[in-house]
Amino acid sequence: MAVAPPAAYEQTDRTTPTRLRERASYDREVVHAILDAGYVCHLGFVREGAPVVLPTLYGRVGDRLYVHGSTGSRPLRSAGGAGEAKETGMPVCVTVTHVDALVLARSAFHHSLNYRSVVVHGTARQVTDEQEKRAALDALVEQVTPGRAADCRPASAKELAATAVLRIDLTEVSAKTRTGGVNDDIEDLPLPHWSGIVPVAPAYGTPIPDKHLAPGTPVPGYVTAL
Amino acid sequence: MAVAPPAAYEQTDRTTPTRLRERASYDREVVHAILDAGYVCHLGFVREGAPVVLPTLYGRVGDRLYVHGSTGSRPLRSAGGAGEAKETGMPVCVTVTHVDALVLARSAFHHSLNYRSVVVHGTARQVTDEQEKRAALDALVEQVTPGRAADCRPASAKELAATAVLRIDLTEVSAKTRTGGVNDDIEDLPLPHWSGIVPVAPAYGTPIPDKHLAPGTPVPGYVTAL
Repeated sequence: MAVAPPAAYEQTDRTTPTRLRERASYDREVVHAILDAGYVCHLGFVREGAPVVLPTLYGRVGDRLYVHGSTGSRPLRSAGGAGEAKETGMPVCVTVTHVDALVLARSAFHHSLNYRSVVVHGTARQVTDEQEKRAALDALVEQVTPGRAADCRPASAKELAATAVLRIDLTEVSAKTRTGGVNDDIEDLPLPHWSGIVPVAPAYGTPIPDKHLAPGTPVPGYVTAL
Repeated sequence: MAVAPPAAYEQTDRTTPTRLRERASYDREVVHAILDAGYVCHLGFVREGAPVVLPTLYGRVGDRLYVHGSTGSRPLRSAGGAGEAKETGMPVCVTVTHVDALVLARSAFHHSLNYRSVVVHGTARQVTDEQEKRAALDALVEQVTPGRAADCRPASAKELAATAVLRIDLTEVSAKTRTGGVNDDIEDLPLPHWSGIVPVAPAYGTPIPDKHLAPGTPVPGYVTAL
C-alpha cells in the first residue's frame, strides 16, 4: 500500500514570512489548488550573482513542477547541459500568483489586493528520461488547456530532442493568500471615500480559428469550457 | 530646455535573448505601455546565494519603478536599513507579464501563449526623501486604480515611517512580446485538430462596497471605468 504524502509541506526558515504569518499556508491541497489554477509562473535563478526572473509555462504532476524551453535557452543551459550543473541542478524559486480583487480602503495605507500565491524554493534538474519528458510536456499542455494533450499531434523525436524540460520537486513550498474586505482603521470609517473590493479574474474571449482550419471544424468542448 | 530621453533602452548582454530575438524590444514607449498595463510585478533578489521571487505591487514614475512594503519585510531589509546595503542597494530583477491569448496549435510542440512582458535588471535602493516617498506611494495606488490617490486619506507620518519604498531605475530593460496566430508546420495543417487562439484578459466584477460604507455612497467613476 502506498504511503500517503503528508498533508502539509514542512515549514522552513525561508518559507516563514517575516510578517502577516496568518496569510501563509503549507497545506498541500491549498498549494496544489493555487498551482492548478494557473499556468504561468515566474522562474527565478541566479546568473553571475544577479537575480533573473522570467515568465514561463509550467505543469504540475503530483509533487513535481515542470518547466520547459529550448535547449539553447539561458536558464535551461544553466540547469545543465554539461558537467557539474547537470548533476547538482540549479537553485530556483518558482512563484505563481493570482489576483482576485482590488481592495480599496479609505486610507492609502490600507489599500491592498486579494490574491493567492505559491512560492517554491528548490532545485531545477534536467529531465533525461524520455518517458518522464513526454509526460511533462503533456502536463504543460494540460495545465493551460485541460483536455488538449490528447487532441493534438504529440512531439516528434526531433522536437523532443530540441526541448529541454526541468523538474522542480515540491518540498520547500508555501502559499500566501489574502481574502476578505477592507481593513480600515476605525477612526477612518466616517470618511466619505467609497470603499470596498473590486473582483478581478481572467476572462476568455471568443476563440479565433486558425486561417488554415477546415471550415466547420467545431470548437472543442474543452475550449468552450475555459 | 529638458533633454528628451532616448527612444530606446540600451541593449546589454543580459537583455539580449539567446533565441527568438525578434520578440524583444527596447523601445521606451513599448516598455512603458506594458508596465502601465499592470500593477503586480515579480521581484527577484538573491538571499544567501539562492533566488527569491515575490509578487508585489509596483508603480512607475517616468524611468523609475517603485515597490513598497513593511520596513520589517525581508527584501526591504536586504535593500537596506543599515550599513553597506543602504548605499550599494540590492541587485534585483523585476518582471511584469500579461497573458493575451492561448495559442492552440495542431502540434503539442507549437502550443504557445500570446503575451507581453518586461524584464528590468537593476538595483533597488531605499527611498529616504519624504517627498519622493509620498509620490511613490501615490504612484502605487494610481497604478492599480487610476484616479484613486486623490480620493483617499493620504498616509500619516506614522504610516509613512512604517512603510519602506524601494526605487529601481529603468536603465537595463527589455520587453518581449508574442502576438498573432498559430505557427504550425505546413505538413501539420491537414490534421483534424481544432487550432486557433483563445483571447484572455483580466475582467473586473461588480464592486462590493465595504459593510461600513454609508448607504447610497456612489461607486466612483474611476472604479466603474476599470
